[in-house]
Amino acid sequence: MSPIWEEQYLLRIFVGEGDRHGRLPLYEALVELLRREGVAGATVLRGIAGFGASHVCHSDKLLDISHDLPIVVEVVESREKIDGIMPLLDSMLKGGRMTLETVSVRRI
Amino acid sequence: MSPIWEEQYLLRIFVGEGDRHGRLPLYEALVELLRREGVAGATVLRGIAGFGASHVCHSDKLLDISHDLPIVVEVVESREKIDGIMPLLDSMLKGGRMTLETVSVRRI
Amino acid sequence: MSPIWEEQYLLRIFVGEGDRHGRLPLYEALVELLRREGVAGATVLRGIAGFGASHVCHSDKLLDISHDLPIVVEVVESREKIDGIMPLLDSMLKGGRMTLETVSVRRI
Repeated sequence: MSPIWEEQYLLRIFVGEGDRHGRLPLYEALVELLRREGVAGATVLRGIAGFGASHVCHSDKLLDISHDLPIVVEVVESREKIDGIMPLLDSMLKGGRMTLETVSVRRI
Repeated sequence: MSPIWEEQYLLRIFVGEGDRHGRLPLYEALVELLRREGVAGATVLRGIAGFGASHVCHSDKLLDISHDLPIVVEVVESREKIDGIMPLLDSMLKGGRMTLETVSVRRI
Repeated sequence: MSPIWEEQYLLRIFVGEGDRHGRLPLYEALVELLRREGVAGATVLRGIAGFGASHVCHSDKLLDISHDLPIVVEVVESREKIDGIMPLLDSMLKGGRMTLETVSVRRI
């Protein structure tokens, strides 16, 4: 059977490396939540610089390179799955930003 | 002449840092393939954490931070070029995942 | 008030880590320009490998891992804001490549 392209959604969550959720870094808490909720996979990228809305606590100056690098948590999932976890994400992020876009997915 | 926006496609290939293709890391073998096939450019990003479909060998636990970080290989190309290399990518990936989305490209 | 999804644009600027703009690395000059022009935020990602159009000075060989890693500067903004800064970006990049795509944005 040949692989096919299937329509799904790419969700990207922008936080700062220094943001926390209880005792955990926020991005680790997000990854734990995503696993617990059964999303198919997640990838965490760390930027080398950035500013502004890429972290939860807005700042008017360039991010301190060593202390609050931007983090992007990426998830590719169905719209239903993403809509289902959105209230949980909203309550954890309290500030910050997410983007959503349609992508075609090929599983081999 | 003013630069213009041209419609192309962003292909993202998700593998694990520990995945291999013969004697090479899989992501290096993919970059070699992409160059040999004449794609215009490729960018390889390494995540700092992740789980699940972001690597070829699915796992039920969080990726070991030091041994199998998620890798994303990105290509921006025409649909014809991407369709042309897809059978080669399918045969190298044997598991794993790709996403495709339309983007406007500006070359300056 | 519940957060909503708002249509904006993801601009990605591909340069090389070794590219310069005057005395600054080009990607740092881009981040300074973006802040000065009041964009809401920017994230700078550094690749671990790449080739071709991911850096300003095109090369026919794989990027030297230690000297010219690919850099992606990402901005999420309104189309008006992006169109407004485009002439400035065009004049700074002189070669290189940008991609633009629509995304839904959620601010919490």
